[in-house]
Amino acid sequence: MRRFDLIVIGSGPAGEKAAVKAAYFGHSVALVEEKRKLGGAGINTGTVPSKTLKETALYFSGKRETGLYGLERVLEQKPAASHFLYRQAHVCAELESEVRDNLALHGVEVFCGQARLVSRNEIRVCGLKEELLYGDYIIIASGSRPHHPENIPFDFKRVHDSDSILTLERFPASLCIIGAGVIGCEYATIFGAMGIDVFLINDKANILPFLDSEVSGELVKIMGQNSVDILTTELRSVSVPADSREPIKIDLASEQVLNVDMVLFAAGRVGNISDLGCEKLGIVTGKRETIKVNAHYQSSVPNIYAVGDVIGFPALASTGMDQGRVAVSHIFSTDDFDRLPKKFPYGIYTIPEVSMVGVTEQEAREKDIKYCSGIAHYSKVHRGRIGGSKDGFLKLVFERNSLEVLGVHIIGPLATEIIHYGLTLVEEKKTLLQIVAVVFNYPTLHDLYKYACYDGLGNVAGHKVKEG
Amino acid sequence: MRRFDLIVIGSGPAGEKAAVKAAYFGHSVALVEEKRKLGGAGINTGTVPSKTLKETALYFSGKRETGLYGLERVLEQKPAASHFLYRQAHVCAELESEVRDNLALHGVEVFCGQARLVSRNEIRVCGLKEELLYGDYIIIASGSRPHHPENIPFDFKRVHDSDSILTLERFPASLCIIGAGVIGCEYATIFGAMGIDVFLINDKANILPFLDSEVSGELVKIMGQNSVDILTTELRSVSVPADSREPIKIDLASEQVLNVDMVLFAAGRVGNISDLGCEKLGIVTGKRETIKVNAHYQSSVPNIYAVGDVIGFPALASTGMDQGRVAVSHIFSTDDFDRLPKKFPYGIYTIPEVSMVGVTEQEAREKDIKYCSGIAHYSKVHRGRIGGSKDGFLKLVFERNSLEVLGVHIIGPLATEIIHYGLTLVEEKKTLLQIVAVVFNYPTLHDLYKYACYDGLGNVAGHKVKEG
Repeated sequence: MRRFDLIVIGSGPAGEKAAVKAAYFGHSVALVEEKRKLGGAGINTGTVPSKTLKETALYFSGKRETGLYGLERVLEQKPAASHFLYRQAHVCAELESEVRDNLALHGVEVFCGQARLVSRNEIRVCGLKEELLYGDYIIIASGSRPHHPENIPFDFKRVHDSDSILTLERFPASLCIIGAGVIGCEYATIFGAMGIDVFLINDKANILPFLDSEVSGELVKIMGQNSVDILTTELRSVSVPADSREPIKIDLASEQVLNVDMVLFAAGRVGNISDLGCEKLGIVTGKRETIKVNAHYQSSVPNIYAVGDVIGFPALASTGMDQGRVAVSHIFSTDDFDRLPKKFPYGIYTIPEVSMVGVTEQEAREKDIKYCSGIAHYSKVHRGRIGGSKDGFLKLVFERNSLEVLGVHIIGPLATEIIHYGLTLVEEKKTLLQIVAVVFNYPTLHDLYKYACYDGLGNVAGHKVKEG
Repeated sequence: MRRFDLIVIGSGPAGEKAAVKAAYFGHSVALVEEKRKLGGAGINTGTVPSKTLKETALYFSGKRETGLYGLERVLEQKPAASHFLYRQAHVCAELESEVRDNLALHGVEVFCGQARLVSRNEIRVCGLKEELLYGDYIIIASGSRPHHPENIPFDFKRVHDSDSILTLERFPASLCIIGAGVIGCEYATIFGAMGIDVFLINDKANILPFLDSEVSGELVKIMGQNSVDILTTELRSVSVPADSREPIKIDLASEQVLNVDMVLFAAGRVGNISDLGCEKLGIVTGKRETIKVNAHYQSSVPNIYAVGDVIGFPALASTGMDQGRVAVSHIFSTDDFDRLPKKFPYGIYTIPEVSMVGVTEQEAREKDIKYCSGIAHYSKVHRGRIGGSKDGFLKLVFERNSLEVLGVHIIGPLATEIIHYGLTLVEEKKTLLQIVAVVFNYPTLHDLYKYACYDGLGNVAGHKVKEG
């Protein structure tokens, strides 16, 4: 039986970073991956594909530039689904091979097959080649997969989940997306940008309820202008006709019926634990097939850790990678990175992007914080004007007396990038007066920070004319 | 005689912000502008036009996206000079009217004409309507203009300065740019991106010598791949033939002769002080027609201040605006912003962009700092891969023992935006270990910071395999 210091289950962002870090620090590491492609959902079906499709949709639609330059760039032909998927397939293939190289470079040994926990230290790799491995420590980074409720007749041709949508053979004439979470909203704006009529079924009062409500309101407004019709109701049933030329009928609790060409079910993901054998070892699991862990990412079995989507919220590639790194720090006492920071940004790759860090206005009210806010619109800062921005804004939520920044909320191009400056403001408890004294490059979108401060200071003073 | 608390001379970024801030705090303000258009070089001839032309060149050339998506967007026709200039004219007109509105909104009274200092408190406005104004304080923000040496036969048709290049009636078949400073380099890459053969005459050992030399080296490499031929030599003479169909002959100290269609002279700017009458009042002036000021932007005459390009280095719109704000703080003791921060980013809007903050490797060596560096390439981070980046990098210079970040140097798309996160690292003396513990949105270009840290830590450890 081969023995390793560490066995990692899963080669997605969380598993890869954990394996590589442990190997970097000189430990012997095995990685077990059941899929033929390395990289997990982060690279193959989730994060990277949808972010690349967003860029493709922006490029094909010319959404950001049409009408700005007095001369247009037009597509040499109408894009087919194959064109739409071309770039993401290329990028994902590149990154998959990079994961393979990175693991090889660090001497991580990759085993292909399904991992089954045999004991607290033993894993059986079940595949073409079956093998038993011993590990002093085990990190489960087996990821998640789309939730498949029984009442959805998935056929992966016309009724898709967020994996199979990447195998589209033709564009939908119209699309109903069930579930207005992050994935549903991202795909709604991507297909909307491609000019496809999209219905987005949202069963909550607001989409993306963790967002500042002014931001989600702006997103809803912009979606409405871009072929996305949001229906706040519940799904009753989906009926797929035998004849694929006939529309799919979607029956809604609102008593409306939708007749659409395709369906994307995007309401939730579940952890990949069903075949691991957690129960047998007494590993405590939670809702939606997740593994429960402590702050060090230890499961209820001390030498078995779990990181990434399989532990549930926030289930981001960014946090998964760092959870993997933190788990390795704890296992091998590398002392370099012992816990995730409390503040981290949340990025949503809709068109336009949304990103936030810290406290929303709703939270500030709930916590009874004496707060105030300041807003700057993309259309008002000069970099936004050059790029023809019409929508979008940056909002600062700050403590009214101390003027310390508590939260930053951005909707607009590059929101997921420029939020990082805001992250430092929230971390370092910077005040509005400190921010207005910063010299930013001009013209940049970071000017939004300065102008939001001026607006906030004006609001505090009850003096609505801005200093500008 | 009309009396004001403050008279501002010039409506460029520095003058506008000074005037508006003083008015915001309740003071009576006059602003004198000699040009018919408000906004100065920042809006009309310098910053905004060249930054907009850069975006236009990227759009028309498709430089960032061609070949990525398997289907191209092509220009509906070959762009003429009028198309090339269309967007910048539109943006500048919008922003000009915004300056006008901002001044009006705050009750700043605008006088059209040339300002002449009559006494320490009196200014004669010389224009269609002549008038004498009294100001308790005066801020000179009269800006700068292109330097016109006698040996350059400017005709503003084929031999341009950086103002007249915005009035091009046709594209040059080829272009010689004299002066490889910021303006020269920016226009070289803009015209290079448009597919025009560009010669860039550089009379120093390195272009942009204040940059980290690895960054300027990368810029030179990328320029070379994009129709820009850099000649390190001095200019002897420029001969414009009588027949405009004949080439202009440029005689170089290297004994080469260039036969080009047009010339852009971009070697330096001089302050606009010649008609103000500074000498009469004893205002001390410096090199290149600049006004000397102290840390509060006070000239040698205590109630007369000067801000922006007219005081020389760094002569950026970003610093000018804040100099204006700081001067007003000092004059009216508003106590909100008493000096410019010591650290500010420097942004160069070439294709690709360059930006930096803090110490370069050369400076670290000169100061005998025990430093080390770490690099991350755009082509290695996933957001860069999605966008097809082939060149460009982010480099951290840090103190070898403490691991504190001393300088950040970026060349690549959005460098002028993502530098601001680096600004906070340098300001707050963050260490590499603190940065690797930050969770960034994934995928973003801010991942460059994390991967540059891993590279740096590997360099310190003499351990070149990266943690990844």
